[in-house]
Amino acid sequence: MDSGSQKLAPATVIAGSTASEKFTALASELAAIGRGFYARGWVLGTSGNFSAAISREPMRLAITSTGLDKGTLNAASFIEMDDAARVVSGRGKPSAEALLHVAIARELGAGAVLHTHSVWSTVLSGAHAARGGLEIRGYEMLKGLEGVRTHEHTEWLPILENSQDMTELSVRVTKLLRDRRELHGFLLREHGLYTWGATVQEAKRHVEIFEFLMEVVARASALQRAESTETGG
Amino acid sequence: MDSGSQKLAPATVIAGSTASEKFTALASELAAIGRGFYARGWVLGTSGNFSAAISREPMRLAITSTGLDKGTLNAASFIEMDDAARVVSGRGKPSAEALLHVAIARELGAGAVLHTHSVWSTVLSGAHAARGGLEIRGYEMLKGLEGVRTHEHTEWLPILENSQDMTELSVRVTKLLRDRRELHGFLLREHGLYTWGATVQEAKRHVEIFEFLMEVVARASALQRAESTETGG
Amino acid sequence: MDSGSQKLAPATVIAGSTASEKFTALASELAAIGRGFYARGWVLGTSGNFSAAISREPMRLAITSTGLDKGTLNAASFIEMDDAARVVSGRGKPSAEALLHVAIARELGAGAVLHTHSVWSTVLSGAHAARGGLEIRGYEMLKGLEGVRTHEHTEWLPILENSQDMTELSVRVTKLLRDRRELHGFLLREHGLYTWGATVQEAKRHVEIFEFLMEVVARASALQRAESTETGG
Amino acid sequence: MDSGSQKLAPATVIAGSTASEKFTALASELAAIGRGFYARGWVLGTSGNFSAAISREPMRLAITSTGLDKGTLNAASFIEMDDAARVVSGRGKPSAEALLHVAIARELGAGAVLHTHSVWSTVLSGAHAARGGLEIRGYEMLKGLEGVRTHEHTEWLPILENSQDMTELSVRVTKLLRDRRELHGFLLREHGLYTWGATVQEAKRHVEIFEFLMEVVARASALQRAESTETGG
Repeated sequence: MDSGSQKLAPATVIAGSTASEKFTALASELAAIGRGFYARGWVLGTSGNFSAAISREPMRLAITSTGLDKGTLNAASFIEMDDAARVVSGRGKPSAEALLHVAIARELGAGAVLHTHSVWSTVLSGAHAARGGLEIRGYEMLKGLEGVRTHEHTEWLPILENSQDMTELSVRVTKLLRDRRELHGFLLREHGLYTWGATVQEAKRHVEIFEFLMEVVARASALQRAESTETGG
Repeated sequence: MDSGSQKLAPATVIAGSTASEKFTALASELAAIGRGFYARGWVLGTSGNFSAAISREPMRLAITSTGLDKGTLNAASFIEMDDAARVVSGRGKPSAEALLHVAIARELGAGAVLHTHSVWSTVLSGAHAARGGLEIRGYEMLKGLEGVRTHEHTEWLPILENSQDMTELSVRVTKLLRDRRELHGFLLREHGLYTWGATVQEAKRHVEIFEFLMEVVARASALQRAESTETGG
Repeated sequence: MDSGSQKLAPATVIAGSTASEKFTALASELAAIGRGFYARGWVLGTSGNFSAAISREPMRLAITSTGLDKGTLNAASFIEMDDAARVVSGRGKPSAEALLHVAIARELGAGAVLHTHSVWSTVLSGAHAARGGLEIRGYEMLKGLEGVRTHEHTEWLPILENSQDMTELSVRVTKLLRDRRELHGFLLREHGLYTWGATVQEAKRHVEIFEFLMEVVARASALQRAESTETGG
Repeated sequence: MDSGSQKLAPATVIAGSTASEKFTALASELAAIGRGFYARGWVLGTSGNFSAAISREPMRLAITSTGLDKGTLNAASFIEMDDAARVVSGRGKPSAEALLHVAIARELGAGAVLHTHSVWSTVLSGAHAARGGLEIRGYEMLKGLEGVRTHEHTEWLPILENSQDMTELSVRVTKLLRDRRELHGFLLREHGLYTWGATVQEAKRHVEIFEFLMEVVARASALQRAESTETGG
């Protein structure tokens, strides 16, 4: 596959559109992605949340209202919030985890932040927690991560201890992102994946890439073990 | 994710609606959920049944008629029954397991009861039967269970011996629910999952949470074993 | 779940319909089932074939024409054939395996015969070939097999050696069915599943039940092993 | 199943159609296939690319433009290119891997070339790399590969070392295809599958057959190990 740098033109940047039109366009785009992730089992049981930046100064994010079934998302499922996760417009309230979206958007200038809870991210973030992260290397699919040009790449996917104190956790996330600006995502232990992108589509691609690679890492580990004790395939 | 307590307004309580309108609304909502579960492979081969409370005094439940393909459910697939599982209206007859729905609705005041037969619930309810249940702890997804506020929670999912005598089994279920009112579901050994909620949507969320967590528990067990004998991932 | 004996009224028996109308109704019903199986990955790559009896005297079966993509089946994908697998009407030709459909329809009076190639049936029919079959017992889902009333049932799913000589293989199938009239299906080694029913819907249910149970048997075997060497779950 | 030789009439050869009509027909056919592969998780994150021959002299291929989300492919997602992978018409640019498509179309006269990145092809191409390929034998599904008449067939699926130098890699691919004209596909290590066919539908069938067989090989290996240490199933 080609490097992720041959990316789509950012369809979400609409010259001359009003903030309200931008909100609706971004929310609709995120809603479609969320329904697709729900179908794949990555955001079951109202888990997961998705955001995109409407403006930088002042910071305004479109973000999923909390507690919704992701299989039925539409533009009205989103609210507009500021950089303290306060509602600016829309019905509902942001997830407590909205502070993590703000931290990522602010530190990295991300255009979109996606958070999923898949089986594999939950399992691997538990199994590798003691090592502090998951090292993924040698796979062609790594090139789907923005800026990666070759499969001869080592991606570090850090695992942060989970917490219910989002202020404390957002401080840890901010510190992590300042120290390791080359990251494309991180895991919360036995919780799920955070990844992001310059555009909504880039962030969606990063979710798919990481979910794919985590399944590969887990299955390769099991297969390697079976193969090492068998003769023939 | 946010605690399950930030739940949707109960869409199924329609002020001023007649019992018949309530029946149709609840049956349509359950039918859509059932078709979704069928697509995920959780109610293959006419397995599974779903109910929701239309009224409490007297108790009336909308419940799937027995023996139907869950991939083609619609409101006409449901019957109305009383607290002895006798048909009040509608064509067809309730499942023998309807007595378990009545027991759960009566003991816990559940607004909806969902029963699924997934691969993982079948496998885990066999593998853990000797321990009497499955202990699930530490996962963020536990917060999708009503009233759970933190991942630092231990959920006990009891496993009851399977039986074809539904009167006898409903007595055991009633006793279990009186002793352990904090439960969110239980497994029947090598049979499947029962869970419930105040509303149809809450019960649906509980199915998704438990199905997710059971897959995680099973895969984490297998991965842990592979990892413990390998170097690197 | 309820026993499979609480089955649907056979929707495919239409009083007063002409043979042509019956053909079209059965072919349409089988086509919809085939598209669903394709979506689940049970008949990839033009594998699988499906038939239903239009009449007994003389025997006429609607059966999939050979070599078709099962994701795009419709009534025109079927041909009508006689008990020697000769085309009576329709475009295309029957699969060489049509003789097995005839053998099953003749020996058991089956109204429909469905043949699928799933990953699990392929894997298990190889792993258990030396034992001559797969024993499945204790699962509630067994009640989805016609006539089974309790989970305390042992189902024998024989495994026949695969062959390209369909005349020879149909003789072996005929002998098997005469000796073991209680069977609900059989496997061809590293090839797939044959199952049947009085109606198309009953045969569909049997496919789902067997596919479910085979996945359960395979995963339970792997999990049992992991659990037996771990402490805790 | 029947041998792959009972294939569909090549729907993509439209007598009297213009090159432009052929391009559109082939691109639409490939787009539908690509969306289906995306749904199955075989081309996540903009991975994969698909081509079909419009003409031989001069060689013109319709091929996916690089960097696209395969879940939203349509005919406009394709470009027309020549045998040096230069754009002849259409918007976008071909993948760097377009040279491999050219090599396959030129050496084997393939009418279509499909490249996918599935979990199983990634895992197996890593696990078996040291042996130079994957040997698959004894499965009925092998008959879905063009020209294979019996399950008693041994298919060799070579594994080539991955590379970012497409000129160098296309030389290796050309050499491989000249030496082993009986091949139906090959793997790039920890990257994915290349397969092809006389028609688009035949190439699609080959993808499904190989993806199925790779999953079977991987799961059979794991199951065989579990079974060999257990008593009973």
